[in-house]
Amino acid sequence: MAGAEVSLEHLYRVFTKPEGKDSKLAQIEQHLSDNLADFLSQHVVTKVNSLEQIERSFAKFAVPEKPEFVTDHAESLLTTLVANSVNTYSPTFIGHMTSALPYFHLPLAKLLVGLNQNLVKIETSKAFTPLERQVLGMMHELIFKQSSDFYKTYLHSASYALGAFCSGGTIANITALWIARNKALPANAQFKGVFQEGMAAGMMHYGYKRMGIISSKRGHYSLSKAVDLLGLGRQQMITLDCPTQQLSPEKALAAGKQYQQDGNKVLSIVGIAGTTETGHIDPLDELADVAKELGCHFHVDAAWGGATLFSKKYSKLLKGIEKADSVTIDAHKQMYVPMGAGMVLFKDPNDSNAVRHHAQYILRAGSKDLGATTIEGSRNGMAMMVYSSLHILGRQGYELLIDQSIQKANLFANMIDEHADFELVTSPTLSIFTYRLNPKSVQHKCMAQPQIAHALNNELDKLTVSVQKRQREAGKSFVSRTRLQIEKYAEQSITVFRVVLANPLTTESDLQNILDEQLEIAQETKTWHKLTKKNK
Amino acid sequence: MAGAEVSLEHLYRVFTKPEGKDSKLAQIEQHLSDNLADFLSQHVVTKVNSLEQIERSFAKFAVPEKPEFVTDHAESLLTTLVANSVNTYSPTFIGHMTSALPYFHLPLAKLLVGLNQNLVKIETSKAFTPLERQVLGMMHELIFKQSSDFYKTYLHSASYALGAFCSGGTIANITALWIARNKALPANAQFKGVFQEGMAAGMMHYGYKRMGIISSKRGHYSLSKAVDLLGLGRQQMITLDCPTQQLSPEKALAAGKQYQQDGNKVLSIVGIAGTTETGHIDPLDELADVAKELGCHFHVDAAWGGATLFSKKYSKLLKGIEKADSVTIDAHKQMYVPMGAGMVLFKDPNDSNAVRHHAQYILRAGSKDLGATTIEGSRNGMAMMVYSSLHILGRQGYELLIDQSIQKANLFANMIDEHADFELVTSPTLSIFTYRLNPKSVQHKCMAQPQIAHALNNELDKLTVSVQKRQREAGKSFVSRTRLQIEKYAEQSITVFRVVLANPLTTESDLQNILDEQLEIAQETKTWHKLTKKNK
Repeated sequence: MAGAEVSLEHLYRVFTKPEGKDSKLAQIEQHLSDNLADFLSQHVVTKVNSLEQIERSFAKFAVPEKPEFVTDHAESLLTTLVANSVNTYSPTFIGHMTSALPYFHLPLAKLLVGLNQNLVKIETSKAFTPLERQVLGMMHELIFKQSSDFYKTYLHSASYALGAFCSGGTIANITALWIARNKALPANAQFKGVFQEGMAAGMMHYGYKRMGIISSKRGHYSLSKAVDLLGLGRQQMITLDCPTQQLSPEKALAAGKQYQQDGNKVLSIVGIAGTTETGHIDPLDELADVAKELGCHFHVDAAWGGATLFSKKYSKLLKGIEKADSVTIDAHKQMYVPMGAGMVLFKDPNDSNAVRHHAQYILRAGSKDLGATTIEGSRNGMAMMVYSSLHILGRQGYELLIDQSIQKANLFANMIDEHADFELVTSPTLSIFTYRLNPKSVQHKCMAQPQIAHALNNELDKLTVSVQKRQREAGKSFVSRTRLQIEKYAEQSITVFRVVLANPLTTESDLQNILDEQLEIAQETKTWHKLTKKNK
Repeated sequence: MAGAEVSLEHLYRVFTKPEGKDSKLAQIEQHLSDNLADFLSQHVVTKVNSLEQIERSFAKFAVPEKPEFVTDHAESLLTTLVANSVNTYSPTFIGHMTSALPYFHLPLAKLLVGLNQNLVKIETSKAFTPLERQVLGMMHELIFKQSSDFYKTYLHSASYALGAFCSGGTIANITALWIARNKALPANAQFKGVFQEGMAAGMMHYGYKRMGIISSKRGHYSLSKAVDLLGLGRQQMITLDCPTQQLSPEKALAAGKQYQQDGNKVLSIVGIAGTTETGHIDPLDELADVAKELGCHFHVDAAWGGATLFSKKYSKLLKGIEKADSVTIDAHKQMYVPMGAGMVLFKDPNDSNAVRHHAQYILRAGSKDLGATTIEGSRNGMAMMVYSSLHILGRQGYELLIDQSIQKANLFANMIDEHADFELVTSPTLSIFTYRLNPKSVQHKCMAQPQIAHALNNELDKLTVSVQKRQREAGKSFVSRTRLQIEKYAEQSITVFRVVLANPLTTESDLQNILDEQLEIAQETKTWHKLTKKNK
């Protein structure tokens, strides 16, 4: 490949002149604009290369010495990167939380880069700062429904924040627990607060042996990251068994009381609104009472399920969320915003001050600089994508999307339940559920003779892993897999397919095809033959 | 404004059909593509509205009930958001680290959203995972220059990571210090490690009273966030005076020894390669030796200055960076990538395992899922922007950009130094420096009679604040301001203008105009008249 000229003149052109309309990059862009689905189906190669093969295209470790022409580079992006990407827009990609996005995000992404604001500080973001604060206010109101006076006071106040916008749910959860930790070990006459003096001093001052968080085993891995990062230690992530996929308030209370009796401090109960694995919602209302009784923070991880609040029909599933001290919601999940839009909302706007930082050249005291109360510093203006989505879809549009997702999940769950060779493992509460292949004869056996269920489940686990991998590799469709403890199998953990029915473009026949393909793949396996033969 | 139809059919169109070529959004996009500078100068209104005025456009706190037409929304974005944004591409916006970007990032931003990969996990990112690892490898090699075998072993290894890609330098610095902390309080026969048992148990086990970080007063505020977040406490952020704007190795060693003698543990020396305020580079080579002598981690925050390594001429300014245990570099600074591209590189690829997390449904053990060793979970594919920039600009292109920035900073510093009414406060090492307005007569007085310098400096501070604000509000150009302790003024802190000469499109006459405007604004102030009259 001939290199581009190495001169300042050439570089100025790269900064000031777009590629011509016939250039490869312009062609890519045009194709994206005209028909995104067609672009993806044409360029994302469905024949799946192995990771090892792909890695060969990304094996050089030295910075390229000579500049490349934009158009040559665009060509190579298509063949090495795009061709080996995942078609997350595909209606048959129902294995993870990424789905098709509305078209308007494509031009908005360009506008975002064209403006390239930095939200750490008002001087580099201007209108993006009030915009982001407004978005946080809207989400706050959706959850906590405070008075008009409340929002008039706090929405644009320099001394408070209704929440923090962040790159994703993990940072959102960490932010919430950081605030909770700083509030749990506050300053007093003898102690300057954990903020100033650190964890060791704080724990000693307050006479706590340990400080921990209680959630169900379905709690997101970000909670473990948080307890490590915040200096609590991963052992203080107390995850309770949940064979029903929900955190039991009784168990949570008992565990909390015991923990406290042992000389420890419960930092927070974490309720989940839409678990990553099964979409279940913890009993938030009761858990809020448990947190109150334990005298601890109540955080709700609604990264997935929070958007359910847009639906009049289903929002009641999240009853009690308004009692939370903090709530995580990811706009890049059920709000159909591109990756990188997490939020945490604080019921009490003063909570943000538990982590407030200042610096002279930036984040001046009294300013509205957003970086003073967020973990991240320099950040982009992703809040614009949420703002636009809230306006272009509106509550009513989101309601339709949420409702159709849940209804589609129920439809698919029924198809599975009625199919002789599939077993519905967890029913959908929201639009996520789990199932597996399980030949009819085996299903009867599993249920009827618990003493042999264990061995059969182990065989079925192998089948699930093998079918999931082969289906993924075939490249037509994608479901994910996970392992869950299941009540009806004497709380044995089993491997299951996991589906997320969030893509509005997924049709009933897509779903039927996915089942057909899975059965077909299964029937080609030795495990299937062994299982069906043995259990005739 | 008439609302759009509330129906699933309408929503499907939003997901599947682009707006027509005549729509407002398409027009915006076309304008961005054809002539970004013209778009910005036409739509970013130079007459600056007050923040209070702008906030009135973002004052509603309820989620809009009805959907809006995309085209109506696009129109409103232009008037409320774009019009009140900051023109960070402008050659006269030289007050912060955001600057014009190469054109190719606009279509790439669209491609990024069109692919919408999630890098937490290989199943949702595929080729983006090896791409990101390659980018980290290239940056690692730029800094640490390890052998070809080293990169062959580690570049794509599932058990190690050469670094972590993150949303920005703050998360990068936190990641580095998180790793350092977990390594400083490791597991042994009696203790499971701070990772598992937390800070209080760890400090007790190892018999440390406190654990802290040593940097100069110019250390970035993210370091304070880090010591709070990690449970060390902000008091353990030991910032040493640096009237020369550089951390003195002797002072750092003495402070470290004293801290250790007091029963504490030095977690890390943090050297800065390009301070945010003055662009100075700490003596990294000597600081590496200090860290060695103290037996602690050595982190280099090269968020700004790291890209200097692309320049053969100036890379020697960072001598010793290769001795660091970890290095932060922001691609959205001197690598001209859109906001949201931070990186931390680990000299020892095993360091990443000090913070490794797993989860069943995601981040499986043995997988190459990136989320296992990063703070963030779901993340977008910003690494593609860095990858493309490295290829399209190449080392040689970056070298030209870095060299011209430093040369332009020196040119501007000379213009100021030679101007009777300006005072160069800190000289540029890289492309950042500080100065102020200071009438000739006063300059003589300040220097000649140190006993009255203090009061004069206070007057000059007021002048600097006032001129900086008025120039910003006039909207033609932007320099920032900060406060610095200055050796020649008996270490008094003074307020100064701060400039960042990173925009390749900034010309000598732009710089002249900025000075002319500042002088003009100053001469209209009472402070100027008072100062020049009194000190005739």
